[in-house]
Amino acid sequence: MYAISLGEDGAELRPLEPWQAEEFLAHMDRGRDFIGRHNGLPDVVRDLASSRAYLQGYAEKAAADTGRIHGIWSDGTLVGAVILRTMDVPQRTAEAGCWLEPSAVGKGLVTRAARLLIDWAVEERGIHRVEWWVSAANAPSIAVARRLGMTKEGVLRESYLYRGERHDMEIWSVLAPQWRAGTPAPNAS
Amino acid sequence: MYAISLGEDGAELRPLEPWQAEEFLAHMDRGRDFIGRHNGLPDVVRDLASSRAYLQGYAEKAAADTGRIHGIWSDGTLVGAVILRTMDVPQRTAEAGCWLEPSAVGKGLVTRAARLLIDWAVEERGIHRVEWWVSAANAPSIAVARRLGMTKEGVLRESYLYRGERHDMEIWSVLAPQWRAGTPAPNAS
Amino acid sequence: MYAISLGEDGAELRPLEPWQAEEFLAHMDRGRDFIGRHNGLPDVVRDLASSRAYLQGYAEKAAADTGRIHGIWSDGTLVGAVILRTMDVPQRTAEAGCWLEPSAVGKGLVTRAARLLIDWAVEERGIHRVEWWVSAANAPSIAVARRLGMTKEGVLRESYLYRGERHDMEIWSVLAPQWRAGTPAPNAS
Amino acid sequence: MYAISLGEDGAELRPLEPWQAEEFLAHMDRGRDFIGRHNGLPDVVRDLASSRAYLQGYAEKAAADTGRIHGIWSDGTLVGAVILRTMDVPQRTAEAGCWLEPSAVGKGLVTRAARLLIDWAVEERGIHRVEWWVSAANAPSIAVARRLGMTKEGVLRESYLYRGERHDMEIWSVLAPQWRAGTPAPNAS
Amino acid sequence: MYAISLGEDGAELRPLEPWQAEEFLAHMDRGRDFIGRHNGLPDVVRDLASSRAYLQGYAEKAAADTGRIHGIWSDGTLVGAVILRTMDVPQRTAEAGCWLEPSAVGKGLVTRAARLLIDWAVEERGIHRVEWWVSAANAPSIAVARRLGMTKEGVLRESYLYRGERHDMEIWSVLAPQWRAGTPAPNAS
Amino acid sequence: MYAISLGEDGAELRPLEPWQAEEFLAHMDRGRDFIGRHNGLPDVVRDLASSRAYLQGYAEKAAADTGRIHGIWSDGTLVGAVILRTMDVPQRTAEAGCWLEPSAVGKGLVTRAARLLIDWAVEERGIHRVEWWVSAANAPSIAVARRLGMTKEGVLRESYLYRGERHDMEIWSVLAPQWRAGTPAPNAS
Repeated sequence: MYAISLGEDGAELRPLEPWQAEEFLAHMDRGRDFIGRHNGLPDVVRDLASSRAYLQGYAEKAAADTGRIHGIWSDGTLVGAVILRTMDVPQRTAEAGCWLEPSAVGKGLVTRAARLLIDWAVEERGIHRVEWWVSAANAPSIAVARRLGMTKEGVLRESYLYRGERHDMEIWSVLAPQWRAGTPAPNAS
Repeated sequence: MYAISLGEDGAELRPLEPWQAEEFLAHMDRGRDFIGRHNGLPDVVRDLASSRAYLQGYAEKAAADTGRIHGIWSDGTLVGAVILRTMDVPQRTAEAGCWLEPSAVGKGLVTRAARLLIDWAVEERGIHRVEWWVSAANAPSIAVARRLGMTKEGVLRESYLYRGERHDMEIWSVLAPQWRAGTPAPNAS
Repeated sequence: MYAISLGEDGAELRPLEPWQAEEFLAHMDRGRDFIGRHNGLPDVVRDLASSRAYLQGYAEKAAADTGRIHGIWSDGTLVGAVILRTMDVPQRTAEAGCWLEPSAVGKGLVTRAARLLIDWAVEERGIHRVEWWVSAANAPSIAVARRLGMTKEGVLRESYLYRGERHDMEIWSVLAPQWRAGTPAPNAS
Repeated sequence: MYAISLGEDGAELRPLEPWQAEEFLAHMDRGRDFIGRHNGLPDVVRDLASSRAYLQGYAEKAAADTGRIHGIWSDGTLVGAVILRTMDVPQRTAEAGCWLEPSAVGKGLVTRAARLLIDWAVEERGIHRVEWWVSAANAPSIAVARRLGMTKEGVLRESYLYRGERHDMEIWSVLAPQWRAGTPAPNAS
Repeated sequence: MYAISLGEDGAELRPLEPWQAEEFLAHMDRGRDFIGRHNGLPDVVRDLASSRAYLQGYAEKAAADTGRIHGIWSDGTLVGAVILRTMDVPQRTAEAGCWLEPSAVGKGLVTRAARLLIDWAVEERGIHRVEWWVSAANAPSIAVARRLGMTKEGVLRESYLYRGERHDMEIWSVLAPQWRAGTPAPNAS
Repeated sequence: MYAISLGEDGAELRPLEPWQAEEFLAHMDRGRDFIGRHNGLPDVVRDLASSRAYLQGYAEKAAADTGRIHGIWSDGTLVGAVILRTMDVPQRTAEAGCWLEPSAVGKGLVTRAARLLIDWAVEERGIHRVEWWVSAANAPSIAVARRLGMTKEGVLRESYLYRGERHDMEIWSVLAPQWRAGTPAPNAS
């Protein structure tokens, strides 16, 4: 029912709910190899039941006000999502994330979608600090963090075990005053 | 984040979630006497805790895909809502409902909002039959059912105990083919 | 332990509990085709686990005071049941129902059993309105509603999806004063 | 609805359910001092909420097939109960118990009621061993165990802490073959 | 992390937690036939999932303060356990138990381990009465009860159904004053 | 029952369980102001009920293998604790923490206790990475991280809202190979 245009190319941000599990699985199947390079999601969403369980988890986060998921549709096809993986309203912190299937990469969809979501978190919900946790090897996602004006705060060494190897995780963030100022943080050039 | 215009007067339909419990309570307080003439809701939403519990119930229905609530905002104020009180996707049936606080009455907001919701139910979710249960004494709500092209199917005698008195309940409905045809049902003149 | 005679033919009404799941399944197997013409129950009670789950559901309704099931035994064989599918004591409403396997049809067992159950609901529990929801095609069950002095209040068009087809559902009811007067409602001739 | 006569004096055994919490509390209030001499029940059933909770617990035991409660009515007044405090159908064991308010004592009501319950347990449910746990100081309850043909199997020293003092508990039992033979156990004279 | 020496032979008592399910299963596999002569545990712990479930149950008892399990290690191998199968702190009662795999029998390990556990229950937790339920045919376990200074209080006839046969269960116990005095009870010679 | 000496001064590490809620509350009351300078715990543990709830939470973490708490006793008084606030065994990561009441500060108790806990995590449970999250203003806790050979990996700006002010949080960690080598990390001088 709801949709927000992501620009002139017809892409849209929309709610993504458990009843769309089949559509979500098809998206994950198309993006499985690409998304799975740095992101464990494809190992979680493997079939219709696990697809529904994943979206169900986010529906429950929405009900508890502790997370959100929104899908990105391009030409009527679900091609990615932006999420608040966690949201702690009393602490006024949240962690954002995103992914795209390969066909949708390179158009700036994720950056625009993440802006909408962070705007909502900061302006409507009073979130003060939005984090972005990303594998140090995931250059495209790091580039998004930079474009969102985030600052790199540290590297958690060998903290993420994925497909048998340990990866460094970078933590980036933007604080509400920075976000509103719209000025990139110092090292986010 | 999301909003759908309800017409030229700037009114909008938007998601209504548990974190908006305070705003929802203020709306209920403004409409308490008026809404409470035929509708038990004001007896359920009495304070912040019960307001949150009510919206929480709908967030859980959304997570379970068994109901939905959307708020109607006019000039930035929450003035009413449309709901799918129940939705049974396997059976392809749903029951819709609505209310407004007095200041928003008479502009057709509820009819327009209900159209959006029923369109979503019928076209996006495959619902075949949308019901409208209404107290036989609630003339304005019956008028909405008529404007939505619904047919009166029966009267459940003394079926609703409200504030110590028993009321007859009318059941109206519209079936998907009628809805799509947009032709009012015979007796809905 | 408990039993109430249903007349001179030795038939009895008795509690029906989860531990009787095997006996209940055998009854359902004997009546599967016949009962299943208008009633979805045989699709629900398919094996021992689902038979136990069904009776378990009613045991939980009894514990919550929101429903009841009683079995009808004839010559020591479980041949049918009468139920309060729902019971809302604060609202003082209930919905009754019944079924028989073919060998027990035509003796008036269900009407007598339903009278006992409705008497209990009205006289001991203060229920004001007892409903009977029935497929418009289920002539025998409609005949029971008539014999119980119920009034037809409406027809819910295409409201019940069963084995791939949509059926009209009739709602019949009797109110406590009518029940006590024992006079058939006007159109229940 | 159901009732079983307990003899010529009009006393009856009937189901006892959560909706009867008020009646149960009134009974407990009348018998509080008398029953409370050897039995912790009056400390558990103190007001309407705890009365409902107690009966609710037994409704859940019935649903789980792990216990039962039945009330004893005399001249239309609830005067006592017999229970299967526990019932382990796979192990084929159960523990029975009972109590009366003072006005109903001395008529053999409990013995007759307990016979019905043990008969049901042994004959309908296949219980092999029915226990009776009783404070060594509770002479009337021990007399019932004797009248039921039970055998004393041991004394658990200082095992029951009640109102600040520790009491010895006796365990009596009857096995199914004894029960069926109807012959009192050796020391049950 | 924690360990208490059980004597000069290097045996130790240690916490036994769900993450040790594999080690626990290996122990049970080694002792399956021997332990299973009088004890249903080997029928409960059959594979890794049931081993984890069993230890999980005890972790939950520890969290609820209603039971405890501790493992006995000899030369680095888990060879047995002592348990408080139940612990009722408000009533100040508990039931202890134990088992060993065959290789560890005859060294007094269980008696020493049970002493530590009963000491903890009596001295640190205020338990007044510690029971020992044992099959009348389980001579080694009865010998442990004797060595612990327990008194035989009774025999529950045919109370334990195990592998298709009914067994008499003996109840032994020691009360806190006896335990502290360290004097064996009369018939515990 | 269990205890591990923390050195020549008689201090000990022991399990800390829900039944010790009273003792834990007394400790928290003595250390409330001191511990509360940088740590939200005193705001969580305010009375007996919240003290029990906090320890209950850790008992449930132990049951789920996702965290641990151990108390530090000095001269028989509970003076502090070391915790694994989180433990993710499949990911092989954990977060450690600690606190002391003022009387116990300056003796190295926490460092010794943390060593035992990290040793257990690394050597017995296979944890690869142990984190230490600490307010940038909490010099004593940062000193412990240094003494444990941890490396500072980043600063999460204004990430912790505590008593109305936002604080920077530092993340320190030690990896298993470093831990085993026992060589302080480069910047941990």
